[in-house]
Amino acid sequence: MTKTNSGNFFEDFRLGQTITHATPRTVTVGDVALYNALFGARFAVQSSDAFAQAIGYPRSPVDDLLVFHIVFGKTVPDISLNAVANLGYADCRFLAAVYPGDTLTASSEVIGLKENSSRKTGVVYVRSSGFRQDGTKVLDYVRWVMVRKRDENAAAPGDLVPQLPKTVDPATLGAACPAITSSAYDLALAGSPHRFGDYQVGEKIDHVDGMAVEEAEHQMATRLYQNTARVHFNLFAMSKDRFGRRLIYGGHVISLARALSFNGLGNAFHIAAINGGRHVNPMFAGATVFAWSEVLAKADVPGRHDVGALRLRTIATKDQPCEAFPLKEGDKDDPAVILDLDYWVLVPR
Amino acid sequence: MTKTNSGNFFEDFRLGQTITHATPRTVTVGDVALYNALFGARFAVQSSDAFAQAIGYPRSPVDDLLVFHIVFGKTVPDISLNAVANLGYADCRFLAAVYPGDTLTASSEVIGLKENSSRKTGVVYVRSSGFRQDGTKVLDYVRWVMVRKRDENAAAPGDLVPQLPKTVDPATLGAACPAITSSAYDLALAGSPHRFGDYQVGEKIDHVDGMAVEEAEHQMATRLYQNTARVHFNLFAMSKDRFGRRLIYGGHVISLARALSFNGLGNAFHIAAINGGRHVNPMFAGATVFAWSEVLAKADVPGRHDVGALRLRTIATKDQPCEAFPLKEGDKDDPAVILDLDYWVLVPR
Amino acid sequence: MTKTNSGNFFEDFRLGQTITHATPRTVTVGDVALYNALFGARFAVQSSDAFAQAIGYPRSPVDDLLVFHIVFGKTVPDISLNAVANLGYADCRFLAAVYPGDTLTASSEVIGLKENSSRKTGVVYVRSSGFRQDGTKVLDYVRWVMVRKRDENAAAPGDLVPQLPKTVDPATLGAACPAITSSAYDLALAGSPHRFGDYQVGEKIDHVDGMAVEEAEHQMATRLYQNTARVHFNLFAMSKDRFGRRLIYGGHVISLARALSFNGLGNAFHIAAINGGRHVNPMFAGATVFAWSEVLAKADVPGRHDVGALRLRTIATKDQPCEAFPLKEGDKDDPAVILDLDYWVLVPR
Repeated sequence: MTKTNSGNFFEDFRLGQTITHATPRTVTVGDVALYNALFGARFAVQSSDAFAQAIGYPRSPVDDLLVFHIVFGKTVPDISLNAVANLGYADCRFLAAVYPGDTLTASSEVIGLKENSSRKTGVVYVRSSGFRQDGTKVLDYVRWVMVRKRDENAAAPGDLVPQLPKTVDPATLGAACPAITSSAYDLALAGSPHRFGDYQVGEKIDHVDGMAVEEAEHQMATRLYQNTARVHFNLFAMSKDRFGRRLIYGGHVISLARALSFNGLGNAFHIAAINGGRHVNPMFAGATVFAWSEVLAKADVPGRHDVGALRLRTIATKDQPCEAFPLKEGDKDDPAVILDLDYWVLVPR
Repeated sequence: MTKTNSGNFFEDFRLGQTITHATPRTVTVGDVALYNALFGARFAVQSSDAFAQAIGYPRSPVDDLLVFHIVFGKTVPDISLNAVANLGYADCRFLAAVYPGDTLTASSEVIGLKENSSRKTGVVYVRSSGFRQDGTKVLDYVRWVMVRKRDENAAAPGDLVPQLPKTVDPATLGAACPAITSSAYDLALAGSPHRFGDYQVGEKIDHVDGMAVEEAEHQMATRLYQNTARVHFNLFAMSKDRFGRRLIYGGHVISLARALSFNGLGNAFHIAAINGGRHVNPMFAGATVFAWSEVLAKADVPGRHDVGALRLRTIATKDQPCEAFPLKEGDKDDPAVILDLDYWVLVPR
Repeated sequence: MTKTNSGNFFEDFRLGQTITHATPRTVTVGDVALYNALFGARFAVQSSDAFAQAIGYPRSPVDDLLVFHIVFGKTVPDISLNAVANLGYADCRFLAAVYPGDTLTASSEVIGLKENSSRKTGVVYVRSSGFRQDGTKVLDYVRWVMVRKRDENAAAPGDLVPQLPKTVDPATLGAACPAITSSAYDLALAGSPHRFGDYQVGEKIDHVDGMAVEEAEHQMATRLYQNTARVHFNLFAMSKDRFGRRLIYGGHVISLARALSFNGLGNAFHIAAINGGRHVNPMFAGATVFAWSEVLAKADVPGRHDVGALRLRTIATKDQPCEAFPLKEGDKDDPAVILDLDYWVLVPR
């Protein structure tokens, strides 16, 4: 029997099955520095212990997306090693702040299975969760992926498409954000004069700046998360594949778009939830990423007078600046669009 | 009104104006590790807590140039986002040691303004300062940049060229260096047998080694400093520009030259001041950087028997070894010369 | 007299000579994060403080190979700056765990010297050791390199080829591994169900995954170790050399092979010794590294009921997957083989 992990195939999953993922990971200031070097994030809360402490955090929390990527990375060897496509995310909530020194673990529950008519693949829906060393759940999200079958003749292991919320209820937001002292939130240091009240539903913001991506950068990022998907690393295999090259982890684009969004959303210091997201087109090294955002909704968070929630749609493009807010060309997606992300951020009032 | 920062134009500055820069930044051992990985510095004081403690530091201080780059990076969105050229530095002094865990902030005062005859641009002189979380000033320097006007017809906002010292007075050096126990400074561990007395004015040192630079490296470095200048990152825009490619942050070359200078100046453990510097030619990825130095002067630092000050001129070149000490070809600068830096270092006696 | 270090030539070495190497180096969580980003290691003990503590470590130890690379890097300026070839390793033992915050120093003793018949070069054998700040020896290994003579007519400085063990005696293994609580070693979190008893002598394991290497990655890694060998960095010089490009540090391939070996050897959490190793062919950026391993032997470690020792031979290849366990083509090494490493790992019982 081989000792090598070849990952699960569609028929290996069972409804209700819970999978404990390897490898536990202590997050450190070293990881934070690398994340900064890779994306250039400038949100003051995550950048400065002094700033974070002034508003009520014990110290700077780890960037929400770094937590997401580490938890996501753990799920790959069990869930998506034999995936054909990463189809979507839903109901992603950040539930507790993570600080340097915390150790993250992850598990997933299979909540849906749907064989495709070809019988060669099926869609697996999992609810994945990340935990701190004390058992506190820090993150929870649903992901669905199309996974190959090992044997086309194997029986489908289940047949259930779960009901998923289109958006996370804003009443549930904010568990990962301590009560903050809004008056101590220094707008000059934060780099943006705009508080929650300054944003309008329907407002569109071009984030202006562009960021090129190198092969070494996305490889380092994705390894940092211990994500083992071969499409990001195995140039030998990928050079024979349809794209002829390595594919960049979709989460890399999310982090770039988030970092770029500082220019216009500098006080949106915390991602509280991700309602959904699509990697519209693949991203490759050598392209320059741009982004723009639209404010889809504004919401009060019950019991919170310190922060309000903005629902944002952030679009990332490759090699196309966003002053025209690209999205569609006629009835079709613009081929330059690579990411379409719907999420909630918290902004001080 | 747009929420995006498009930076200040020449006519937006005022003499005497003070600008508080975003984003505060806690410097960690993670940043130090990245700095080491990017430049390969080998100065023992910055590399080893044990070595630093043996001579009188509480622990290894953060590399002087990393402090400089972080403070410089903060000034970019306010001072030089619309710059045509970074013209020079003067009167740069390191005033207090920075240790991992310290949080840096920065502000700038406008000390000079001079419109160019074209009326399309003007030169802005700023004195920029970096501070620790307790308010201690850690760094202070003057920089002047040529900045575009938004509107050619706008009135010049001022007309003053400040008097700047050609060199920092050596009597003012050393505030960032605690009294060190010279006898505990282990020359074998430090990697060089040469103390202050071994250097002669006029002595030239070829630093021999060469270091190639990759796009991923300078992008990671410059993002680490939260420097947002688009010339370093926006390949899409730069590929249409006169050079057709990304320009490497001038500070990257300074850090490479400093790291290379270890070979010959291994005990020059602290940069106490920068008298001036010019980025003589642009640097691009793929080139190999070499460096040589000349000892311009030697000085006692009043009250300090532990260290002496060397005034150095360090020249960095691209794709040209420095055994011939390249500088000029006839009356012209050698096109391979990319940096001409004049600074004070401290060396144990 | 030049102040630049031009390294030792063959005739500069003396039998019995002890060389203290510069530069002491404090290892931090920042270095660990970079190591993770560069190699994507997934061994739970090194990844998670919580996991390490559960089995008896005070916290996650620094990866054995990171310790090796840092110690090795220190020896380069004194031992191998004028090396023609790095010929081999033997008798490498890890003697004490290293934790973030520890400071490493290194020294070497010359234990063999053998001039080549050409009289242009000679082989230098050194026993190099790494130490913690408290003087504890953490690592000890023999390396031999072919070093140029400065002057062909110089007398040979000695003539002794040392006797070296073919393999490290397993009875001496384990000093760097505290007694672990095997029952607390969580196989699900560790990512592999296989304990010591599950491995058979003669068993071959294809590690399946492939990892491409970029120039920026190996430069950052090698600078992180303060390794100054010009072949890795000086593109200008190397582009005129026989390969026309930078050569990747052999240790980079060892670390990649080790990280890839997680897939099949996930519980081989500690490298206890390296019996020998050969860099069979040079490695360049742009190639994809694969690896496979054979279990050469199994051994009890006297007094240890918690762990057993596997002697492994790990082969790394470039641009060639390892399902056929490539090694030889007829009587010759396969040109795709780049590393042939013989070492002992500890695995929980």
